[in-house]
Amino acid sequence: MRNAQGRIDDTVAENNNNSVVPLLNPIIAGEKEDFLYHFGISKTKDNIPAAFGDVKFVCTGGSGPRMALFAEMFSKEIGVPCSDNLSKSDRFVMYKAGPVLWVSHGMGNPSISIMLVEVIKLLHYAGASDVTAFRLGTSGGVGVEAGTVVLSTLALNGELQEYHIQYILGKKVLRPSPLSHSLTEELAQLAKKVSVPVECGKTLCADDFYEGQARLDGEFCAYTSKDKYDFLHTLYEKGVRNIEMESTCFASMFRRASIPAAVVCVALLNRMKGDQIHLDEETYNDYEMRPFKLVTAYIKEKMKSLQ
Amino acid sequence: MRNAQGRIDDTVAENNNNSVVPLLNPIIAGEKEDFLYHFGISKTKDNIPAAFGDVKFVCTGGSGPRMALFAEMFSKEIGVPCSDNLSKSDRFVMYKAGPVLWVSHGMGNPSISIMLVEVIKLLHYAGASDVTAFRLGTSGGVGVEAGTVVLSTLALNGELQEYHIQYILGKKVLRPSPLSHSLTEELAQLAKKVSVPVECGKTLCADDFYEGQARLDGEFCAYTSKDKYDFLHTLYEKGVRNIEMESTCFASMFRRASIPAAVVCVALLNRMKGDQIHLDEETYNDYEMRPFKLVTAYIKEKMKSLQ
Repeated sequence: MRNAQGRIDDTVAENNNNSVVPLLNPIIAGEKEDFLYHFGISKTKDNIPAAFGDVKFVCTGGSGPRMALFAEMFSKEIGVPCSDNLSKSDRFVMYKAGPVLWVSHGMGNPSISIMLVEVIKLLHYAGASDVTAFRLGTSGGVGVEAGTVVLSTLALNGELQEYHIQYILGKKVLRPSPLSHSLTEELAQLAKKVSVPVECGKTLCADDFYEGQARLDGEFCAYTSKDKYDFLHTLYEKGVRNIEMESTCFASMFRRASIPAAVVCVALLNRMKGDQIHLDEETYNDYEMRPFKLVTAYIKEKMKSLQ
Repeated sequence: MRNAQGRIDDTVAENNNNSVVPLLNPIIAGEKEDFLYHFGISKTKDNIPAAFGDVKFVCTGGSGPRMALFAEMFSKEIGVPCSDNLSKSDRFVMYKAGPVLWVSHGMGNPSISIMLVEVIKLLHYAGASDVTAFRLGTSGGVGVEAGTVVLSTLALNGELQEYHIQYILGKKVLRPSPLSHSLTEELAQLAKKVSVPVECGKTLCADDFYEGQARLDGEFCAYTSKDKYDFLHTLYEKGVRNIEMESTCFASMFRRASIPAAVVCVALLNRMKGDQIHLDEETYNDYEMRPFKLVTAYIKEKMKSLQ
């Protein structure tokens, strides 16, 4: 498939059926050593299978301290110890609690792309199988009220196409960025049980927080307030319910590796009503916990059925 | 100006002459309050002019702990105290030592874009003037040996154009991404005095560490070793001497604000010879210090002439 705007590369892991995490690079597959630079972990010097072989869930989010907190809370909730930070580099943090890996990804597609490549390779070297991935984050709501958790049905890039944009060997390549329909549906059902307000919808993945999200409060702003609201209404009519900054890469990379994945982001504000986030600390903390509450409820249910 | 691939927006601060840091957004300029969300700093509740009014230099780099270390070392070198972390959010760190702000930017253009917008607004609210900006980082060398500091003459995007790509209101916008010729020239002259090996050249700004930089050691690799070397040779012939992940945004945003800016990145390896970084800790630390050594020598010279 090709279109005028870039080559579409639709290669995904074949016949994987979400069993063992694949390595889709024949060149590195033939190498004895592989050093996962941004985690400081070596294929030959660290015992990756012993440390990560039982991982069934990957939970990722932007901030390192928040991921550390989530890992600690989850470990207490299921009554298993939480690891120390398993990343030996200062680029990301990574904690393990039971079958769950909690990893930070920083902000934006380029940052998360590095983490995902190294985490998927790590899980492959570990021999991990039947893995499911979640992104837990914050976002700007589009026509949804602050506090609503948006379950992404698919991720749109800055040109409102359902693709993650990569540049490879000087050429633009488009990778499809859908998310797991069945996983999102299961999360939506579970949300009712655990009293988390959710809405399913498309997610716009922007490359910046200000101009890329049509905010009026950045350093630069060459558009008008009317332009902004027209754009937000266009998004709403296309089915977009929130805006964040990592979903196209997250969706496309896990799709290529045939790993079911969900993006679960709470809206911190309704962008139709403003740009600045005005929440007292208590409300902010309550909202920020909602994706965690929903995803951990899901993982706990699955852990029961695995036993 | 327009071309087939996107709208080119060439708006920059007018008649600024690098005096007071401008605010290029008439909408937020009319608002009483502005909360710099990713630093947790308020225009009305924090005394920004008192804390930041004397800033003349902004030094940025990817990692928070490294920026903390650089700030501490610089403060000792010039004999002034180093502030605590002035960022009240966990997204970035920010330290001040004398007239220099040391700020982390994470990895990739989207991450640095957020920091730059909020730092430029901060400096505007502070009334700071005659500011110069530096990015100190690590990079992959293209035909230059490990340990060489590359001074970027301009930044190229993933399609090898001299523009930062933004998506605004659903449209692709191209922003020119040159760097200050005179500043880079001054740094190159100074490098001889302080015995830092440098080379001036273009910089490819990639959106990921693996496929975007034609590495053969990622999770995904649909190209061959020959494709990789052909691409690196094409880059070399175009004058590219290193690859990193933030220079197009860094160059274009400081250009829009008429603030002279330089990208000073050490090559950790020569990509013509391999993909994985194999450096012992001592060598790594020595290389990582070189951009710091050069930039702080420059700042110290300028501080003398300011007195």
